[in-house]
Amino acid sequence: MKKLDMLTPIGIAIGLTLVAFAVISTSGTSGFASFVDFASFIIVIGGVTAALLINFTLKDIKRFFHVMKESFTEEPHDIPKLIDRLVNLSDKARREGLLSLEENLRMEDEAFLRKGIMMAIDGVEQEELVEIMNSEIDVLEERHRKGRLIVEKAGEYAPSWGMIGTLIGLVLMLKNLNDPSLLGPNMAIALLTTLYGSLLANLVFLPMASKLELKTEEEIFYRQIVIEGVAGVQSGQNPNTLREKLSVFLKDTSSKKKPKKAGEAGEE
Amino acid sequence: MKKLDMLTPIGIAIGLTLVAFAVISTSGTSGFASFVDFASFIIVIGGVTAALLINFTLKDIKRFFHVMKESFTEEPHDIPKLIDRLVNLSDKARREGLLSLEENLRMEDEAFLRKGIMMAIDGVEQEELVEIMNSEIDVLEERHRKGRLIVEKAGEYAPSWGMIGTLIGLVLMLKNLNDPSLLGPNMAIALLTTLYGSLLANLVFLPMASKLELKTEEEIFYRQIVIEGVAGVQSGQNPNTLREKLSVFLKDTSSKKKPKKAGEAGEE
Amino acid sequence: MKKLDMLTPIGIAIGLTLVAFAVISTSGTSGFASFVDFASFIIVIGGVTAALLINFTLKDIKRFFHVMKESFTEEPHDIPKLIDRLVNLSDKARREGLLSLEENLRMEDEAFLRKGIMMAIDGVEQEELVEIMNSEIDVLEERHRKGRLIVEKAGEYAPSWGMIGTLIGLVLMLKNLNDPSLLGPNMAIALLTTLYGSLLANLVFLPMASKLELKTEEEIFYRQIVIEGVAGVQSGQNPNTLREKLSVFLKDTSSKKKPKKAGEAGEE
Amino acid sequence: MKKLDMLTPIGIAIGLTLVAFAVISTSGTSGFASFVDFASFIIVIGGVTAALLINFTLKDIKRFFHVMKESFTEEPHDIPKLIDRLVNLSDKARREGLLSLEENLRMEDEAFLRKGIMMAIDGVEQEELVEIMNSEIDVLEERHRKGRLIVEKAGEYAPSWGMIGTLIGLVLMLKNLNDPSLLGPNMAIALLTTLYGSLLANLVFLPMASKLELKTEEEIFYRQIVIEGVAGVQSGQNPNTLREKLSVFLKDTSSKKKPKKAGEAGEE
Amino acid sequence: MKKLDMLTPIGIAIGLTLVAFAVISTSGTSGFASFVDFASFIIVIGGVTAALLINFTLKDIKRFFHVMKESFTEEPHDIPKLIDRLVNLSDKARREGLLSLEENLRMEDEAFLRKGIMMAIDGVEQEELVEIMNSEIDVLEERHRKGRLIVEKAGEYAPSWGMIGTLIGLVLMLKNLNDPSLLGPNMAIALLTTLYGSLLANLVFLPMASKLELKTEEEIFYRQIVIEGVAGVQSGQNPNTLREKLSVFLKDTSSKKKPKKAGEAGEE
Repeated sequence: MKKLDMLTPIGIAIGLTLVAFAVISTSGTSGFASFVDFASFIIVIGGVTAALLINFTLKDIKRFFHVMKESFTEEPHDIPKLIDRLVNLSDKARREGLLSLEENLRMEDEAFLRKGIMMAIDGVEQEELVEIMNSEIDVLEERHRKGRLIVEKAGEYAPSWGMIGTLIGLVLMLKNLNDPSLLGPNMAIALLTTLYGSLLANLVFLPMASKLELKTEEEIFYRQIVIEGVAGVQSGQNPNTLREKLSVFLKDTSSKKKPKKAGEAGEE
Repeated sequence: MKKLDMLTPIGIAIGLTLVAFAVISTSGTSGFASFVDFASFIIVIGGVTAALLINFTLKDIKRFFHVMKESFTEEPHDIPKLIDRLVNLSDKARREGLLSLEENLRMEDEAFLRKGIMMAIDGVEQEELVEIMNSEIDVLEERHRKGRLIVEKAGEYAPSWGMIGTLIGLVLMLKNLNDPSLLGPNMAIALLTTLYGSLLANLVFLPMASKLELKTEEEIFYRQIVIEGVAGVQSGQNPNTLREKLSVFLKDTSSKKKPKKAGEAGEE
Repeated sequence: MKKLDMLTPIGIAIGLTLVAFAVISTSGTSGFASFVDFASFIIVIGGVTAALLINFTLKDIKRFFHVMKESFTEEPHDIPKLIDRLVNLSDKARREGLLSLEENLRMEDEAFLRKGIMMAIDGVEQEELVEIMNSEIDVLEERHRKGRLIVEKAGEYAPSWGMIGTLIGLVLMLKNLNDPSLLGPNMAIALLTTLYGSLLANLVFLPMASKLELKTEEEIFYRQIVIEGVAGVQSGQNPNTLREKLSVFLKDTSSKKKPKKAGEAGEE
Repeated sequence: MKKLDMLTPIGIAIGLTLVAFAVISTSGTSGFASFVDFASFIIVIGGVTAALLINFTLKDIKRFFHVMKESFTEEPHDIPKLIDRLVNLSDKARREGLLSLEENLRMEDEAFLRKGIMMAIDGVEQEELVEIMNSEIDVLEERHRKGRLIVEKAGEYAPSWGMIGTLIGLVLMLKNLNDPSLLGPNMAIALLTTLYGSLLANLVFLPMASKLELKTEEEIFYRQIVIEGVAGVQSGQNPNTLREKLSVFLKDTSSKKKPKKAGEAGEE
Repeated sequence: MKKLDMLTPIGIAIGLTLVAFAVISTSGTSGFASFVDFASFIIVIGGVTAALLINFTLKDIKRFFHVMKESFTEEPHDIPKLIDRLVNLSDKARREGLLSLEENLRMEDEAFLRKGIMMAIDGVEQEELVEIMNSEIDVLEERHRKGRLIVEKAGEYAPSWGMIGTLIGLVLMLKNLNDPSLLGPNMAIALLTTLYGSLLANLVFLPMASKLELKTEEEIFYRQIVIEGVAGVQSGQNPNTLREKLSVFLKDTSSKKKPKKAGEAGEE
């Protein structure tokens, strides 16, 4: 159901390639050596890890890599197709009764929609059905928010620990000014932690956290259409009316250039 | 329907001209060469692109240039004229019945207003009509917010990648202090990425994102008047009452200096 | 009706005088020359102008100077006097009927209060009257917010363009290190834009935007008392009860030291 | 009723003592002279004053010192004692009638409680009584927020004007590099304004503004218990039920270690 | 009931170990001496203490160490077990009546749940019961927020006082440039306060404050399930329905990989 979200690895690759290109174009390949320092790397990664361990519980930490992985996958939400399915269900329910939807359940691989239809078949009151499905969205939102928070916090701690590393490097350098010829190189090393911290924040953690937020919003948007649709199916709404009602949401994905029929409202 | 918003290109032109003028006035035209460095440019543009690719889905990215373009266009919202049209519709509906508005639909080129009137003619309940039109505004707001978010994020990443570029330049420079005469020029090049990042953020991305937000607000304000008006037309409100009611919104665009009639409330 | 708000020009004068004094006390009057640089001035003012042109529409820009001017004026809101007037109106309405207030309208120079009373005379339902007056406050708040936004944005862009100017100065300086004796003066000039940007933000734009916000709050507070009072007048409330009800708002302006009567509640 | 809040002067004294100690321990008492510069002091204090004059109206400014003084006083809010008094009032009202509370009014020195009881005696409807008392809390909150805002703004402007002072100092220094031996001392003086601004913000304005906010919260919390209690007294609630209801608020001040009775709910 | 939250000390230990490792790897163990300076330590700790004393009341300050300690403990919230218990209570209440739950109270060591059941037995109306329990959550949230605020403020003041210390060090250093060989070491000492402040903020205060917030959220989430459950028990809800209703919350803790039964809705 999920597929690879190529943009995340492509983005990281592009970022690193361009940095590498810029380094080579000014200093040749030998320039790379200037950007690798194990101790600097340890301070930034270690500091961020330490802060995250203090900041979160073990249960949250365990989900860190799982959450990171999610930025590399994509769940395609085909809203027009969803509306078609909901309208079909509504049509069938009106013709053959709500119970007839039971066979559709077997083929339905969307768990959230399946649950809604099942509750409708079970005769759960509309108000309660909508409330239960909405509170499931709330729980989803809350869990995603918490998962995203770890990535956001990593993006906050990374530059701070980069600066801490640079301060440590500066103190060590300033205490030993005997050999002036080492001043430049030592200063360069001291700056590396700030560079590492900024790269981690602006190439990895912050964009990923932001993408996770957008994906959660999309998922919630999709589920709200499901709820609207299931409620329509349950109350035996006319399939055409239902389609019209749901097509308001469709606008979001449609391009602005296609006002097909004269009587249909285009937008902005 | 849309026309060119000249202020955006004029603003960018003024910004660049003034920077150019300041450079020439102190260093002559030869000073320009100091501000062009291909590798620096690649790091900032490439870094921002990489971060955006990670941050957004392909669907969002595709809309980036479309959204940018919108800062160059302007949709004139003539509120007094809108109120006139709504009052006319209300008048006609009272005299000849709601159905008589059907012919007005053909000449109406405002899709949102057309849709509202059409629903009124179709006999959609007032409450549902208002709800559908409001949820269309919500979807519009949400889509605009997302489009604007890409420009805002670009405005956040640009200075950060400017700083990353400067750090890279500083490390390379400090590692090779052999020739002191190159210290200044190399430092100058290192600073260029920070300059590029700041210019992109403060001359392009941030003002554009802010303008897009203002345009969305204006569009929503305009549409809310449409909803108010269509509801009045549908419920057969007296045209004079409707005009009085809608003229509250008109205050926003009117200058403060025109309290025409003694009995009419001026404002602040 | 409006009078000059002397504090704004006095504040700017004090700020500039003190800066001048500090300069003179350390470097004598000749020190001033160090702080004037035309190109630096052009970059900051031009950059902020460019960003504002992109950020706003022409209609908003036109209001910029009008809004700035408002920080120099003050509309005195005499709440005790307002309450007296409202109580008098209530008294008269009870004795002679609502229609008798028509003659008071002529002498009333407060447009918002006049409009409210007029609607009451015209027999507008209380609920609708309050709604219309509230939505007028909303429109006022919205318009003021937008006017203030330009000043706030100017306060954001000024330091950013100050830094851009300094970066430009630094790059030019570092590229031409031939004459070391010019290093200091050139560096001084480069720093001027940052100084200009900070002064503009912290002496002009930010305090003005903040004052405009406070004035809007005061205006809204005043108008809410008007609404409360007009509603009381319309519903024929007892003048004493109305005074008691409105005097809760009065507390805001009263000093904490005057609990006059034993039975009256003082406050913190 | 108010008593001295010793923590505020003690905190400031500790802060200054430690700074003095650190200076002495490294440079001896002669080090102090390095930290006193009249012109620097004038720029920071004068700049902040100028910004505040522009930012606020005269009425607000006049309250600045009054508000500052409030950080040095403390109004003890004895919640258990308040609950006892409310329960006693409730008990008496049930036994001897609401009117019998009139004699308690004379001894009651808490103005807010007195006002509530008086309104109850006067036969004001419960709903209106609660509304009036709540709107008094709103007015109090609003007035405190505005008073606090001046201190917060002072805490914002202080570091900004510290930086402006340093920029002025740097420009003057860089223009006159003739005597290299003065480079260090002049640089030191330039940094003083930044130090002054930071100390004012982090030792005076920001902690004071934050304390004022906490005090307002406490006052509001206390008054909400009064409202709850007066409403209970008015509606003739059983004293035991009232105590139980009000004791939920008591939890806030009680330590976590005292679950006295088996049947009583402890808490986290 | 509480157990040690090992992650907090482990995180701090990892952070300090990595910093130590990085120092040793570049400068050997002798490098440590460069990072210890008593006066610097006094300025940062003393400044933060002073600011906190001004910022808070004595009552709040006393709770500082108590609150800090809470980051080292963990209250295990076993939600599936809680649901089991609530379902059992519901089952028993339906079979043997609400009063029969009295014996369960004795064994129940969860105070919040015990209080809820006790109120149900006492015949408190459902609406009031839920309101009382909710307001107890509000008070808990408020108290935790205030406790956390001290740690957050410490995390804000620490870097500020680090910078103040560095400014003091720089001024002292610049005033006495006689011995150029001391320039480096003195500069190093000046930077130490910034390092201390950053470490305190990013290794101790900020992660701890954030963890405290997460713990409060978890506690509130747990208590909301209790309220939902007690309300179900009181209204004699069917145990199966109750379990279904509460299992929506369970999703939050369950892994995403366990959609056990075909008919049960999996999620994302």
